This record gives sequence, C-alpha cells and structure tokens, in this order.
Amino acid sequence: MKVSKFGGSSLADGRQLQRVFDIIQSDKNRKVIVVSAPGKRFKDDTKVTDLLLSYAKATVEDTDATEIIETIKNRYHAIGDYFKLPAYELADIDEQIDHLSTKHYRSFDYLYAAFAAHGEYLNAQLVAKVFSHLGIPARFIDPQEIGLQVDDNARSATFDVKSYTSIAKLDLNTSERLIIPGFFGYTKNGDMATFSRGGSDITGAIMARGLSADLYENFTDVSAIYAVNPTIIDQPAAIEQMTYDEMRELSYAGFAVFHDEAIIPAIQGGIRINIKNTNEPDAPGTFIVPPTEVQQTRPVTGIANSNRFAALYLHRYLLNKEVGFTLRILEILKRHNISYEHMPSGIDDLTIIFDKTSLSQEQVDNMLADIASDIKPDTLKWLPSYGIIMIVGEGMRNRIGALTEIVTPLKEHGISLQMVNQGASEISIMLGIQPDLADRAVKAIYDNIFKA
Amino acid sequence: MKVSKFGGSSLADGRQLQRVFDIIQSDKNRKVIVVSAPGKRFKDDTKVTDLLLSYAKATVEDTDATEIIETIKNRYHAIGDYFKLPAYELADIDEQIDHLSTKHYRSFDYLYAAFAAHGEYLNAQLVAKVFSHLGIPARFIDPQEIGLQVDDNARSATFDVKSYTSIAKLDLNTSERLIIPGFFGYTKNGDMATFSRGGSDITGAIMARGLSADLYENFTDVSAIYAVNPTIIDQPAAIEQMTYDEMRELSYAGFAVFHDEAIIPAIQGGIRINIKNTNEPDAPGTFIVPPTEVQQTRPVTGIANSNRFAALYLHRYLLNKEVGFTLRILEILKRHNISYEHMPSGIDDLTIIFDKTSLSQEQVDNMLADIASDIKPDTLKWLPSYGIIMIVGEGMRNRIGALTEIVTPLKEHGISLQMVNQGASEISIMLGIQPDLADRAVKAIYDNIFKA
Repeated sequence: MKVSKFGGSSLADGRQLQRVFDIIQSDKNRKVIVVSAPGKRFKDDTKVTDLLLSYAKATVEDTDATEIIETIKNRYHAIGDYFKLPAYELADIDEQIDHLSTKHYRSFDYLYAAFAAHGEYLNAQLVAKVFSHLGIPARFIDPQEIGLQVDDNARSATFDVKSYTSIAKLDLNTSERLIIPGFFGYTKNGDMATFSRGGSDITGAIMARGLSADLYENFTDVSAIYAVNPTIIDQPAAIEQMTYDEMRELSYAGFAVFHDEAIIPAIQGGIRINIKNTNEPDAPGTFIVPPTEVQQTRPVTGIANSNRFAALYLHRYLLNKEVGFTLRILEILKRHNISYEHMPSGIDDLTIIFDKTSLSQEQVDNMLADIASDIKPDTLKWLPSYGIIMIVGEGMRNRIGALTEIVTPLKEHGISLQMVNQGASEISIMLGIQPDLADRAVKAIYDNIFKA
Repeated sequence: MKVSKFGGSSLADGRQLQRVFDIIQSDKNRKVIVVSAPGKRFKDDTKVTDLLLSYAKATVEDTDATEIIETIKNRYHAIGDYFKLPAYELADIDEQIDHLSTKHYRSFDYLYAAFAAHGEYLNAQLVAKVFSHLGIPARFIDPQEIGLQVDDNARSATFDVKSYTSIAKLDLNTSERLIIPGFFGYTKNGDMATFSRGGSDITGAIMARGLSADLYENFTDVSAIYAVNPTIIDQPAAIEQMTYDEMRELSYAGFAVFHDEAIIPAIQGGIRINIKNTNEPDAPGTFIVPPTEVQQTRPVTGIANSNRFAALYLHRYLLNKEVGFTLRILEILKRHNISYEHMPSGIDDLTIIFDKTSLSQEQVDNMLADIASDIKPDTLKWLPSYGIIMIVGEGMRNRIGALTEIVTPLKEHGISLQMVNQGASEISIMLGIQPDLADRAVKAIYDNIFKA
C-alpha cells in the first residue's frame, strides 16, 4: 500500500487534477491520497491558502470580503466545472466557505488556522467528489475521524504521536480510495490547528507511518531532487536516492522540495519516500531511504546554499578563560527572544550565526547594545548578510580528504571563505561565505566533484 | 630600560645564578629584575615551590615538617654557599621559612598561597644579597612596597590595574638594580595571593607595563620559540618574531614557554617581549610584538598541538529548531560547575569540547546522565581523549587557500580529522583529531608548509 501526497501545483486546476486522477487510477496500491490546497496556476497567481488568509484578515478586521469569497469559490468551481461536476455537488463547499466567517473561534490564531486549513479541507472533499464522478470510488476522510490530534500551537502545531494508534485502525479493506486533507489536525478541544506552511508533507508522512505504508509518494512539480540548485548549474545531476539525514541537511540550506519535519515520521517508521513529478509520473524521481539501503558512489550527494543568514563576530582577550561566558551571551539572546543557528568559537573569538528571516532590526540593535555593554568585547562586528553552503553526503562519513576536494577548487578560483565547519556532522561540511560569492563557490565545488 | 624576568631553571642553583649575574652586568639597562623560585637542577629534582607546598600541607595536617624545612633551607643555602655569601646573610631567610608555619592565615587557600609565594619572595631577597655581594648594588623590592595589588582569589589572583599608578612611582633614578619576586601580589587586606602557576611571567609583564619599559626580556631555557614542538620535528624552524595574538593562540594549544595571561599587560602597554635563553644569552631569541611591527613571510607562524581535551557528541532530529536548546545544555554544565572550550554545531548535531584536565570523572558522569535524561538525544557519545591542533599565522589573515595547504598533506598521509574549525579566528585554523594521530598530522602539515 502506498500513501500518495499531491502538492498545490499538482492540484491547481482541472487539467492538473486529471493527471492526478490518471496517476491514482494507474496503480491500485495508491490507496491513501493526501491533498494540498489548490496552488498557483501561473507565475503571478495566488494560492487558495493565501486567499483564505486574506478572507480571515477581512473577517478579523470586519471589512468587506465579498470579492475574496467569490474568488475562493471560483477556484473550486473551476475545478468542478472542468470535470462537469453537477453544481449541487459544490453547494456544500460554497456553504462551508460562507460559514467560515460566522463561526466562533477560541482565538485569532485559531481563526487564522481554521481559515487556512480549509484550503485542504475543502479540496479533499472536492477531489473525492471528482474521483467518484469519474468512476473511482473515493471517500473524503476528515482528520478528526481518524483521530489525527495535534498540540495547542494553533498555526505551527506538533503532531501527537499517540494518534498513531487510532490512525492504524483506519479500514483499508475497501474498494474506495481515501482522500485526506493535508496540513492540519485537531486539538484536544476539537479546534483545527495547522502545521507550519507546506505541512501537507507532514500529514502524508504521518499517514504513511500510521498505516505502515510500503512507500510514501510525494508528488511535486520536479522530476527529481537535483544535486545542486538548477539556477546555478545548468542541468545538474539528479539524485536517484539519498538518506533521510542527507535530505535533512540539504533542506536546511535551501533545498525546499520536501518539508524537513516530514522526515521524522518516515525515519521512525522506516518508510521510504519517493519524490515524484505529477507532470512526468514515469520518471523514477528521487528516493529518500534509510541509510542501510543506500551506497553512495560519490562522496557528495548534494550541495545546497542559502543566503538567509546573518552573523555576529566578537573578540575579547582571554575570553576563553571566562567560565559562563557563552551562557551570558545566550541569556542576552533569550532576553530579546532571539534564537541562533551556530556558534563557532576560536580561543578569544566567537561567531554567532543567525537566520536573518527570523530577526527584526530592533531585535538586532537591542542585542548588539546589550552585548556591547554587558560583555565589553574588544571587537564587535555585525554582518547583516551571511551565506551558508552545505556540502552533504553519506559518502563523506569517515572519508579522508573530502575537504580537500572542496577547498582546492575554491583556492583555484580565488574564493575565500569566512567559516569552515567540518566534523560536527559526519555527513556534511558547512561553509560560511560572503553571499555574493556563494553561487560561484557552489559552481566551483560542483564542477570539481561532479564533473571530475 | 628593560625589565628582565628569569625563570626557575635560570635560578635553580649557583651556577645558573652566575649566568644571570653576567647577563645583568653586561647591560646597565637591565634595571628591573623579576625572579622566579629556584626550579629543577636536574630531571627528577623538585622545584622549591613544590617543596613549599608540601611544607604547607604538613602544616595544615599538623604532621612533622622537619625534613622538608631542611630541604628548602638547603636549596637557598646551596646558592648562597656557591657565592660564599656570609652565613648571617641567610639567617634571615631561614627564620622566614621557620616562621611560615606559625603565622595566622585568613583561610587554607591563603596559607597555601603564602607558602607558595615564599619561593619567589625569599629568592628575590637572596638574589639581591648575592648581586650586592658580587659588586652590583641591588635592592629587594617587596610587591607590597610598590602597591602590586590583586583580588581575593588567593591562588589564582587577578591583578588590579589601579596598581599601575603606584608602580609607576618606583624611582628608577638609582644605581641599584631592583629585584622583584614574581608570581604574587597582595590583597586589599594585605594577604599574599598568587597568580596561577608560572605566574612570574605576569609579574614581569605588569612591571614592564607599569614602568613603560622599552623591552620585556623573558629569560628561559630555550633559545627561541620553535614553529613546532621539537619532540615531533627534529630541529624545527625558530620563530624570530610573532604577534601577541599568535603567541596567545599557540600557547592555548600547548606552547608553554610564556604564560598566556602575561600577554595582556604587554598588549595594553604595547610592550615588546623578547623570549631569551639564560644559557645562550647572545642568541636573538623570539620577539613577541604588536601586529604593526611584523610582516610574516610564511602563511603559518607555528603549529601547536595538545591532547588535553575531551569531547561530547550528540545528535537529535530537529535539534536546530528548538529555541533555547544550547542554553539548556549550558545550564546543565553550569549545574555541574563544568566549563567548556568549544561547541561546533551541525544542524542536528552538537559537539562540545572540554579541557579534560579540569574535569573529574564524577562531573563527567553526572553531566552525561543529566544530558541523557533532560535532552534525550538520539545519539550521545563521550570521547575521553581528544586532540587539538592549532595552525597559527598572521599570514593567514584574508589569505585564500591556507586550508588547502593544511588538509592536502593530511589526505596524502591518510590522516582523517574529527573537526575543522576555520574562521572564528582570522589567524588560526583549529583541527580536532584522534590523539594518537596528532603527532603524525603535525609532522605532515609542518613538512608541507615549512619545507616547501
């Protein structure tokens, strides 16, 4: 049995849903289908989830939402119409859209969560109707029905592993395909709460583990995960298979194909993941598997880079001799509600690397002021933009000299690094670099390793 | 004017003190002489400071100290006798040794501090007597007389910078050489308190800064600081000059020639330091100078290594997403009074490197137990022995490719690394390595850089 999850672009319109239908019809093992909300149909289109969030905002602010409601309804109607679904089949969906603004919510957070969740919630209902209409018996499954419970973090919820027991009771011994909305679960109190954005991958992984699926298929709009960003390297090598850990490290530094939290249920259940392309379903895609199943022939599986970082550098003589020094710095960070990513240290030097997307200028200013006055460093520098390159590969585990193959091409191209961090993870090397040099560095490393 | 400090081996016996006398006599600018306690005369000899600590222990435990007192007196007498110093000149020293066990001390810590400090205290008195006897007018200066004040940390005191004002008042307009005992100062309450072991270097640096000396000469038993440990490389390159920062980084990882805390006054006063050999005083030695005074021709100035470390490795999925995670770890460390050296992190991995000489097995066991139960890592490993190699050089600042010259020879020799940390400090690269591979690694790197 396979759990097959389809992303927003695979469900953006009727033409795409027809492809999904063909994929499901071609394999009776595709029993459990997890769906996202309809995504973008073209570059500047708006995702249904974002339309719903605008609708939520209008509701909170008590402004006129007539137009946005119409736009949302039209997205579902357009899909229904494509398959000539009778209008009365959509009346129920329209009614739920209207009803959203009149329900009572425990808080604004739960309001936003419920509006957002309806992108998937309504789409799963629609997909079940369309499939049945096209001749594949399909049943909509509400996550509540199978006890998919989450904690009280309304818009960034964590799955409650106790739910696996009830999910496992779902009867698969039926001729129906089961259509489940991704992205959300229910709290103990019965409120809808969503995972973080892109969280339908998590629902898919939870279902795959809960039902002990043979495979978790994750349908997207790329035919494979590539070894490097295709905007940097033309036609890069496709990754045929990689381990869970490799995926996790690559997604950290910019590989956004698969939600990193969705790896956990797969690891725990030993579920193999197959990233596939809805538009090219016969391509093998990329398999993400347990480490025992894969023998990488190359030292490096993938190279990711992201410029979403910022860094602080400080120097003070005899820093190293001060017990509790880092603790004092971390307490300053905590005081300003700032989390950090890495903290490489020299003897009298400390660098702290942050995810700049999580920081406001005010937080940065306050933190720097407190560090200057409490810590009194001899030198304190702020680098507002900092690039990180992750070179990832199970093949680097205990491999001597992987670093040489990385730093030699950089030297040849005259590209200097701000940080090299090897050894904290056995399967990756992390480089810190000026953001404007990152693409050139990635290309130099890729060419040396993959074209040699 | 020069401040000249002589270490324990330079003052171990009469023959050595004769050399010190000759050195002082040969240069009238050697006005201020800072002396250590008499050190070892031969390999298995005991330093006078260690004899005094045994005497302190006997005093605390109220056991018979007759023999140890005799041994201590004999060390000073042997030196006096070598110069045919009249016996009455030593009576005063004998009396002070006897008197040590009958004085009142504020605490056991102050007792140990006072006993230890007397190694230098009595030796400075003796050296002044010997010099005067040999025809160089010399005067013993008690640190109390010049207001050399320290904090209340009896056995690892910190110098109070306010004392510079009183030190600066010392009248140098005299024909006498001024003999000052190293290693200790006085607290506000007038108790003797010592710096950490080897702290005479600190006294020398304080005097040099306080008196705005033209040069701080530090006489030891080596003719230069070598670029690498001579037990690993036969006849290694001598370092003619290096910067304060280079010295600091090298001493961290095993270069023990100069006390690292003694660098601070030199930096603050811009005082040049000259490491020289009492037994080969004409050799130029090694100069430690401000960064503006030196232009290194090699990228690497020195390579140090030390196996005094231990490491903890832990892995947990989505570690990186947990705000406050490191803070929790550091709080566990604080609870067990453990300080750490470095903390390189991956995405879901964290390595913490400790100075194992500062840890008891009990502390380690308790810390690991708390981390296991509070943090619940997927993997938790303890490496009881961990080597660190520091490759240090001002020439690496902004230099592209220094790392290549370090990792390439290691790859060629099949030596793998556990950690590479570059970039936290601009002038060094830190490597983590299995202790039994460290010497081979140092040799491979040295040969590649210094013999190329």
